Amino acid sequence: MAGENPKRAQIHLRLRLDREVAIGPGKADLLEGIRDTGSIAAAGRRMNMSYKRAWMLVTALNEMFVEPLVESSRGGSRGGGATLTPAGEHVLALYRQLETTVREAGAGEIETLSGMLKDISGGK
Amino acid sequence: MAGENPKRAQIHLRLRLDREVAIGPGKADLLEGIRDTGSIAAAGRRMNMSYKRAWMLVTALNEMFVEPLVESSRGGSRGGGATLTPAGEHVLALYRQLETTVREAGAGEIETLSGMLKDISGGK
Repeated sequence: MAGENPKRAQIHLRLRLDREVAIGPGKADLLEGIRDTGSIAAAGRRMNMSYKRAWMLVTALNEMFVEPLVESSRGGSRGGGATLTPAGEHVLALYRQLETTVREAGAGEIETLSGMLKDISGGK
Repeated sequence: MAGENPKRAQIHLRLRLDREVAIGPGKADLLEGIRDTGSIAAAGRRMNMSYKRAWMLVTALNEMFVEPLVESSRGGSRGGGATLTPAGEHVLALYRQLETTVREAGAGEIETLSGMLKDISGGK
């Protein structure tokens, strides 16, 4: 489309502690999905993620942070309900804020790097 | 150690175009290793990466960018020599600059998120 750069690269952030990912794009989207749907299963489905994997990520998040980020009640065919705790809301908001900060501060480098990439979407 | 926060999380950046990683921590370290050692094999070894994987990453880098980032000559038991092209030097420098920019601009959010993480290194 006019005025759009089809090959604008996207920056993705992972916050790691030692070798473990504390939070990255997948965990952030999952937290957002849980907040929006009230369910770990539904949040996972929205991302084409298995229920097992969504649960594993939630468990990892809850274990890495001092306070749990997700509160859940197992049970029923729908897999029970889940909500973000205040700490979960805070972590998600901080991560999204960090994304914005980084995209703004790094806009120059991102633009230059993007311009050096082949336009792989151009042929589609 | 005094004055250090053992649980300071590290931020890792990936620049993606569509679903592919254009450059991230691994590719950047590999480019740096090639620059330092003059060899894809030696650069891979430095990262405990197989020769095959190092070659695959170099091929991916060279295919994603308009100009090749690494110039190599196959051959011999040492796997031939390799150097960064001017475009390779430029991409590496831009990525490292982006890391610095992001760490400085995002220091507040990173610090707050770090403070919410369990000190998993504390017991070691």
